[in-house]
Amino acid sequence: MVTSRDVAQLAGVSQMTVSRVLQGSDKVAPETRERVLTAMKEAGYRPHAAARTMRTRRTSTVGVVVADITNPFYPQLLEAVGQALDAAGQRMVLWNAPDPGGESALRALDEGTVDGLIFTTVTEGSEQLAGALRRGEPIVLLHRGLDSLDCDQVTTDNLAGGRAVADYLVATGHTRIGFLRGPELPSTSRHRERGFRDRLAELGRPLDAELTAQGGFAHDLARSAMRELLSREDPPTAVFCANDLTALGAVDGAVSLNRRVPEDVWVVGYDDIAMTSWDSYDITTVRQPIAEMARTAVRLLLERVDDRSLPPRKQEFPSELVIRGSTAHTAPQNNG
Amino acid sequence: MVTSRDVAQLAGVSQMTVSRVLQGSDKVAPETRERVLTAMKEAGYRPHAAARTMRTRRTSTVGVVVADITNPFYPQLLEAVGQALDAAGQRMVLWNAPDPGGESALRALDEGTVDGLIFTTVTEGSEQLAGALRRGEPIVLLHRGLDSLDCDQVTTDNLAGGRAVADYLVATGHTRIGFLRGPELPSTSRHRERGFRDRLAELGRPLDAELTAQGGFAHDLARSAMRELLSREDPPTAVFCANDLTALGAVDGAVSLNRRVPEDVWVVGYDDIAMTSWDSYDITTVRQPIAEMARTAVRLLLERVDDRSLPPRKQEFPSELVIRGSTAHTAPQNNG
Repeated sequence: MVTSRDVAQLAGVSQMTVSRVLQGSDKVAPETRERVLTAMKEAGYRPHAAARTMRTRRTSTVGVVVADITNPFYPQLLEAVGQALDAAGQRMVLWNAPDPGGESALRALDEGTVDGLIFTTVTEGSEQLAGALRRGEPIVLLHRGLDSLDCDQVTTDNLAGGRAVADYLVATGHTRIGFLRGPELPSTSRHRERGFRDRLAELGRPLDAELTAQGGFAHDLARSAMRELLSREDPPTAVFCANDLTALGAVDGAVSLNRRVPEDVWVVGYDDIAMTSWDSYDITTVRQPIAEMARTAVRLLLERVDDRSLPPRKQEFPSELVIRGSTAHTAPQNNG
Repeated sequence: MVTSRDVAQLAGVSQMTVSRVLQGSDKVAPETRERVLTAMKEAGYRPHAAARTMRTRRTSTVGVVVADITNPFYPQLLEAVGQALDAAGQRMVLWNAPDPGGESALRALDEGTVDGLIFTTVTEGSEQLAGALRRGEPIVLLHRGLDSLDCDQVTTDNLAGGRAVADYLVATGHTRIGFLRGPELPSTSRHRERGFRDRLAELGRPLDAELTAQGGFAHDLARSAMRELLSREDPPTAVFCANDLTALGAVDGAVSLNRRVPEDVWVVGYDDIAMTSWDSYDITTVRQPIAEMARTAVRLLLERVDDRSLPPRKQEFPSELVIRGSTAHTAPQNNG
């Protein structure tokens, strides 16, 4: 069977280039594109036919694995993935995994019940998943990635998002800046914290350990943590929360102590879930382009279902600070 | 193959009684239970073995069909169903159905990919689903039921819930009572409205059409509808919302007009999703016993997977008014 690898060799280009030609990307020079198309013809490469040979049947069903559907971010992401799959004529089946490695979803992939899988809540540590990814099985990581693995991943630049929040809070004059951390393992949590922490240090205002607490990506934990921070002798004037659910909990922690947001304390979240724009919260946050990410994950997955020999592709979207009432609608000022 | 119908005939009892004995219910008189157990022995009835004969293979996977996962009620319900399935050694697979009749889930049931299905967002009108239910296929309706069909259904008493809200608002002295309706089709929406409307009429305070609007089970619609009601010359002093998502939208509609809840207007929701208890909302609502409903639906489904000849069972849970800050923590007074 002719694969994209053979085509790449014949045309003297990388597999990435072959993949780009297949996607109709405009990043390939016209001469190169011509060479790749000629090689495809010569080699008799037909991506769809190749895939059909590999698998005896297609189910037109894609599995999505999620671990935490009561965090409203995930229903929004799933809705977007469902719409993208629908547009591609695919059905969606969900695993709300009690097994974080998605073992039962991987079994369904093995058994041919689904054509491919999208993992949305991956964390380091699942050997079975890592093995499947290394073999190039049709699996795409969406939202959370794995730093240690070369595989198809669709994420946003969480490092840059964390840095942007640090820049914003320093530029608006805050000196007592707090932080509600997320859990240790998810890449989103680690990258947002690293970006925030590193940028604050670069700006000469290293994060004060006294003003950080564990928000745990959970409303009740975040609420308690915020109450704790606000009860200190010298409380923070602004608190960055590692995701929006944490920020909702932080606002409620402040409300429960009769502190006003933003008059007494600013709150910043991350993700831009619908609820942050609701009047009762109105929270400044860092937006992930959920619909675009979902469409890209679906496209990458369907390409890999067609051709497992494609090289690993990592797509990282920019994230954008959205300023709302929880930071007094105040844009940063240049000091120039 | 011996079915529960044969056992019922032999013991001279109804199939419901056989089913109750199987469930270990204490509603069966000891003599009757004895008679049923003897009949089972005589007939050689073994529910599990019977089911094994009927189906060539078991997947230990149950499908759940949901239409609206961005309404936070459904992730909570799904979490509860997932836990109940997990406790029963079953895996859960979800269909977030663009097809309201759950056609692709029904196909999976036909193909034996799942052992049974739980529908959470059913509405009248799907011929395919109605047919499958009439044939006694392993399908349970959870949360929303179908009035017109005899099949396994696990719901709460939405009529009584609606009536309880009418009683409460009249007993606390409101005379200008508003209502944000839900969509036409779901049984939840229809029953809550009917209970509320009928009870208000009985109490001599029929619902004023001028004070009702379509909330649509959606935050943005409910927000607009509430703004509209509050902008009338003589606005309502209390508004009942057909579900909690509508109530969140109603509170935000009030907040957007600088009206205070409960000082300017009371708000009552329905479902008791986690968010209604959060400090920023603190909404009085009617609680559905989600975890119990989920466990019951899973039990009924697994029994039907074992024995399709079981009679249809309808289980209706009571619902409970939970009073919070959006109605000033005010309990109704007896006029006696």
